[in-house]
Amino acid sequence: MPQLRKDPVTGRWIIVETEKPLGKEALKSHPHEKSSKTCPFCPGNESMTPPEIASYPAKGAAKDRGPWQVRVVPNKFPALRIEESTEKAAIGIYDKVGGFGAHEVIVENPGHGTEISDASAEEVELLLRVYRDRCLDLQKDRRFKYILIFKNYGAAAGASLEHPHSQLIALPVVPSRVQGEVKGSAEHFAYTDRCIFCDMLDQEYRSRKLTVFDGGDFLAMAPFASRLPFETWILPKSHESSYSLVSDDRLKSLAVTVKTTFLKIKKALNDPPFNFMIHTLPPHVKEEHSFHWHLEIIPHLTEVSGFELGTGFYLNVTPPELAAETLRNEPV
Amino acid sequence: MPQLRKDPVTGRWIIVETEKPLGKEALKSHPHEKSSKTCPFCPGNESMTPPEIASYPAKGAAKDRGPWQVRVVPNKFPALRIEESTEKAAIGIYDKVGGFGAHEVIVENPGHGTEISDASAEEVELLLRVYRDRCLDLQKDRRFKYILIFKNYGAAAGASLEHPHSQLIALPVVPSRVQGEVKGSAEHFAYTDRCIFCDMLDQEYRSRKLTVFDGGDFLAMAPFASRLPFETWILPKSHESSYSLVSDDRLKSLAVTVKTTFLKIKKALNDPPFNFMIHTLPPHVKEEHSFHWHLEIIPHLTEVSGFELGTGFYLNVTPPELAAETLRNEPV
Repeated sequence: MPQLRKDPVTGRWIIVETEKPLGKEALKSHPHEKSSKTCPFCPGNESMTPPEIASYPAKGAAKDRGPWQVRVVPNKFPALRIEESTEKAAIGIYDKVGGFGAHEVIVENPGHGTEISDASAEEVELLLRVYRDRCLDLQKDRRFKYILIFKNYGAAAGASLEHPHSQLIALPVVPSRVQGEVKGSAEHFAYTDRCIFCDMLDQEYRSRKLTVFDGGDFLAMAPFASRLPFETWILPKSHESSYSLVSDDRLKSLAVTVKTTFLKIKKALNDPPFNFMIHTLPPHVKEEHSFHWHLEIIPHLTEVSGFELGTGFYLNVTPPELAAETLRNEPV
Repeated sequence: MPQLRKDPVTGRWIIVETEKPLGKEALKSHPHEKSSKTCPFCPGNESMTPPEIASYPAKGAAKDRGPWQVRVVPNKFPALRIEESTEKAAIGIYDKVGGFGAHEVIVENPGHGTEISDASAEEVELLLRVYRDRCLDLQKDRRFKYILIFKNYGAAAGASLEHPHSQLIALPVVPSRVQGEVKGSAEHFAYTDRCIFCDMLDQEYRSRKLTVFDGGDFLAMAPFASRLPFETWILPKSHESSYSLVSDDRLKSLAVTVKTTFLKIKKALNDPPFNFMIHTLPPHVKEEHSFHWHLEIIPHLTEVSGFELGTGFYLNVTPPELAAETLRNEPV
């Protein structure tokens, strides 16, 4: 019997297919095609990218000595540029802003095929620290209203290069989904004096139906009203509003949770294309008590139709409880 | 120079690529694969569908005589069912509703290959009347909070059958995008005493930069902050809140606008997959003065990444002015 479910943060409804749900066998990915072009992100080809913003040596190696482990470079084809104007203007009833912003590429690993799921926990920890450092650096500039860390993996998810890389876009506005979450969670807080994400976690500790992986300080879980099959969120168990606040100590634990979750998705679904993005409290916004940062992973297993895009109404063929159980039981 | 643009109805921001914009040559579709399976929607195969809800003879033919021109049947694999419960329940902090609803298929034409762009204006007029009739019929049931008319064309846009067909889903909740538009336009009205969509139209009559086709009573135009390349909206020029209010007389003019717009998209972009959906005032909602129904067409020319899905932030590689000019100049 089909069921409608409401996302407790944003109020968005979805339909969950419970009668003929599709499991991992029906949704498994096909192998990716490999490119034979020279890779601009491989060690030795550093001159193919714009001059680097930052470079991190492998753990234990001296700073600026030996080969890099993570490298941050400007995007060669940026969506926004730091030298553009922040001028706001009206075109009659419409509003526009100059293309001011920043667009960086984070080369995750020197290994061309070493994705997050294959990297060592220490390598993933360094990558997660680089994300945090870039956020801390860029949010000093108060013209940036949001700093978005995301990754497209696989051509079907929008990646144009194979080499493991994430992206950062610093924006002069807040993306609407993040805005909606900040607003929805602030309303819940005004009403209950509680964080809605903490409430979700509390309920999950009791039911354990949506848990993908319990990583100690962090929990990977399927959201109750997940839009797409195998959508997975990673949340800090203690209330924390911004990704830039994660302590060095807890980055270790986050690295294990992230690596394990990605590996489970890779193994269960045959290395599917996916996107992930960090939802964090926009800098200089005072909702520290109500907002709770999290990382969203969206595997690309079914077509997103324009219908879903145009209505915000999703039909999810895999109940999140089934997705969570599948991933929870996947040995890694 | 890239530009950020804000949708005046919902407040959603997008980035428009203006430096290296992609035009129709870069985005044209590849030919669709044809299926050789027996078609359940072709005349003669009526027994392959569930018993019909309604059947309309061709114009001029006597009712219930001769072959059908448009046929409405229940969806064989419905997302929601009329016999399901409307019971609302809480699972701890979460809300769910039973899978109550209706899911119908509207077979648009007896011709297996006769899409809206190929059909006669009279055939399209009848189809648009059937949409209206089904809305009028279903909105008598006050348990339905929204009646969604949409179409997926082409496998990449989510169509599982080739034969020209649209769908109707009657829902016990309002989809979030429609809800957002109702709210955004009501706020604009509270502030200005004007309909934001009427404001958009007024501005367009003066600038003519976003016009795709001027059909007399209706205008086809690219939205200022269009999310995806060649996104096109059709709006009634006179203020009208609900699709179910379109008069018989104006259906003729709407049919010409719809057919011409679809034909321009088909010719300019090599018959691309697309989705369309009608955004109309939810029944029994009192925002007649602020909401303005419209039809949204979203061609499927680039991948929608989970990034865009997860942030609500779109990067549109085709400026809407370029898309509108291309379609406006496409001879039909």
